[in-house]
Amino acid sequence: MKKNILFSANNGLIDRRFFLKSSAVALGASTLSLMKAKPVSSDDIEWPDWMTKPGIGLSGYSSRSSFESHILRKPAPVLGTDGSGSSRTPIQYLQGTITPNSLHFERHHSGIPSIHPDEHKLLIHGLVDRPLIFDMNQLHRYPMVSNIQFLECSGNSRPNLSELPPKGTCGDIHGMIGCSEWTGIPLNILLDEAGLKKNASWVLAEGADAASLTRSVPIEKAMDDAILALYQNGEKLYPSNGYPIRLFLPGYEGNISVKWLRQLKITEKPMMTREETSKYTDLLPNGKSLMFTFPMGVKSVITSPSPGLGLDQIGYYEISGIAWSANGKIKSVEVSADGGNSWAEAELSEPVLSKSLTRFRIPWKRSGAPVIIMSRATDEAGNIQPTREKLISEKGSQVSYHNNSIQAWYISSDGLVENIYV
Amino acid sequence: MKKNILFSANNGLIDRRFFLKSSAVALGASTLSLMKAKPVSSDDIEWPDWMTKPGIGLSGYSSRSSFESHILRKPAPVLGTDGSGSSRTPIQYLQGTITPNSLHFERHHSGIPSIHPDEHKLLIHGLVDRPLIFDMNQLHRYPMVSNIQFLECSGNSRPNLSELPPKGTCGDIHGMIGCSEWTGIPLNILLDEAGLKKNASWVLAEGADAASLTRSVPIEKAMDDAILALYQNGEKLYPSNGYPIRLFLPGYEGNISVKWLRQLKITEKPMMTREETSKYTDLLPNGKSLMFTFPMGVKSVITSPSPGLGLDQIGYYEISGIAWSANGKIKSVEVSADGGNSWAEAELSEPVLSKSLTRFRIPWKRSGAPVIIMSRATDEAGNIQPTREKLISEKGSQVSYHNNSIQAWYISSDGLVENIYV
Repeated sequence: MKKNILFSANNGLIDRRFFLKSSAVALGASTLSLMKAKPVSSDDIEWPDWMTKPGIGLSGYSSRSSFESHILRKPAPVLGTDGSGSSRTPIQYLQGTITPNSLHFERHHSGIPSIHPDEHKLLIHGLVDRPLIFDMNQLHRYPMVSNIQFLECSGNSRPNLSELPPKGTCGDIHGMIGCSEWTGIPLNILLDEAGLKKNASWVLAEGADAASLTRSVPIEKAMDDAILALYQNGEKLYPSNGYPIRLFLPGYEGNISVKWLRQLKITEKPMMTREETSKYTDLLPNGKSLMFTFPMGVKSVITSPSPGLGLDQIGYYEISGIAWSANGKIKSVEVSADGGNSWAEAELSEPVLSKSLTRFRIPWKRSGAPVIIMSRATDEAGNIQPTREKLISEKGSQVSYHNNSIQAWYISSDGLVENIYV
Repeated sequence: MKKNILFSANNGLIDRRFFLKSSAVALGASTLSLMKAKPVSSDDIEWPDWMTKPGIGLSGYSSRSSFESHILRKPAPVLGTDGSGSSRTPIQYLQGTITPNSLHFERHHSGIPSIHPDEHKLLIHGLVDRPLIFDMNQLHRYPMVSNIQFLECSGNSRPNLSELPPKGTCGDIHGMIGCSEWTGIPLNILLDEAGLKKNASWVLAEGADAASLTRSVPIEKAMDDAILALYQNGEKLYPSNGYPIRLFLPGYEGNISVKWLRQLKITEKPMMTREETSKYTDLLPNGKSLMFTFPMGVKSVITSPSPGLGLDQIGYYEISGIAWSANGKIKSVEVSADGGNSWAEAELSEPVLSKSLTRFRIPWKRSGAPVIIMSRATDEAGNIQPTREKLISEKGSQVSYHNNSIQAWYISSDGLVENIYV
């Protein structure tokens, strides 16, 4: 029976190939009638008001619809400040993989500096043959590369490490993630020009914000795929993401992709800055701390359905989400609709790129009975996204960074979606 | 001699592999010293004012830097209207391949309708078994796909068909092009649900603007890769690009990707609307007209250097531009710095995607002598971008759409860039 072939996991998950042309032709109409699209004749639609008069004129710079202006990040500043803290990408309202610059999460340690590009300089010095200083005009003449890659704060998904599952939207919990086409100068070109000395092992990167945010970068990463980013999604970086120039280290925890970059000092050892000693480290049960935990682990999250996006109908919905890994490409994402007892493979949207967001989707037929939906990603290096239980049992209960564990959403019979630990 | 290997074409073009790690280490420092980055010590840089006080706070929605607010499209309305005409993407200021929604070209025939999404309906009728009508909530439950693809107006580059080369920027001449991650519903799913009758051969698509813009789409395209787009670059479509829903036909002339889509009527023959008879056709020398010329031909243009982006230095610059074709992927882009006498292969930025923009780049050492730079793209189907002379000799002097001919820029000894016919 075709139905048994297509329904590959419990609670209504449908084979991801269901909508490929042959299946859809064979089975589409009957199943899709669940959508209750209303049969009509052309007499049934009227001329809307906006077709009766000329519309709004041409402009130099377009804005989104006023009907979408509620789609916002939610600023969460540290008490007593307005520029120290974060605002998270509302990933539950986005589709595909590109994050619009206006909605890309931001995380600052002392607000956004208002940098005049003509006055900004980048210094490269330390263990080099030729210390160099560049203005922005000079930098814009250098060779550039473009890559579509994710950026994730290492504190992303921290709310789910609390004892009880926090309320909040998918973006509130997991929105310290974005994906952009980053364009900039391969850092190895500038380091080659400066000439690395033999004992050059680390690069201290400093931002031109009031926090003077400073991180130590291994020289191997700096010479591998690090870039000095000047453009994000085609246009110049926004101030909230480092205008006029930021370091971008693909796959690494976001904090080390230093924004508003003003100096790179080549050193022999890491400089043990505040952001890699008292912060951005994880206290283990044995009293030692995990430090310099750069790559972000394999991860996925279902963005729709998710809290706040209610399901008011029975029948067909698409389960959709994003997956990523610092270890290269996503190999597969499995989805469960029965709390992890059975899993079905989701469709991955091409192109599946290395160190990038991958959109996954799987058809689902909602019966109306309560269900728990989850997603689990595997990357091309063979890493599998862990359960929350496994992550805490391995790292202890004090861990607060690098939470890549599986998210479960509970969907009640009346279609409300809630965060749940399983 | 290494220099002879690396310099692969005349007038300073440098082999595209020059900046690969091994070459750069061997030769980088000496050549790059042309950039005149100034050797310094750390004492040479001061604390800028913006590091001395907390910066701007977190926000719900970020904006670009005020220092970039001059980057705008240039509205060109038809005389006596403000919403009929176009404003073009300022491609000379963009990098990579993604076009920001705010700067994506717009072309309207009677302005932008202000559509309330709760009141918008899509009707599918005509030669179908089950006429259907959908509201936006229903449509958002359908299966979706995401693809990064270009959209080009068939009137793009028309200025270069005039007798004398027009002044203006690269965007003024070639800016009716954009590239976005489009997310939407495969049209074949909806047509399958409606059930096509045997004689269904065309689909009439109508927009909900005051011009009621209407085009006939071959059923083969509608059932192939056509989508009903709901999202552009992650967020909902902007009103200027069809909010809340547009037809998107990858690779086809932009006009047929009908914005603000309100009905699809399945027919046996094309409906011979205004936009496919008196407009969007090309008068040939024999008095007949080319009609239904859907796919946009293989094309490329150097965006930098280009008019308005002056070169004030001698030495290294990167020549960079975009290439695209409706016939699949770009196979190669060649660049000439001597008016077409010699050509060197440019580097294509990965991923090279089908029916998408591809960014090409090639290093160039400017001597200061006047030069003519050009780019020439070839697609995977083997089509080569024609010269302007060839295009006009084949299609005649009355042609005004589908100009995919090679662009030449003249760079004077004082670094000014001008449009030129060669």
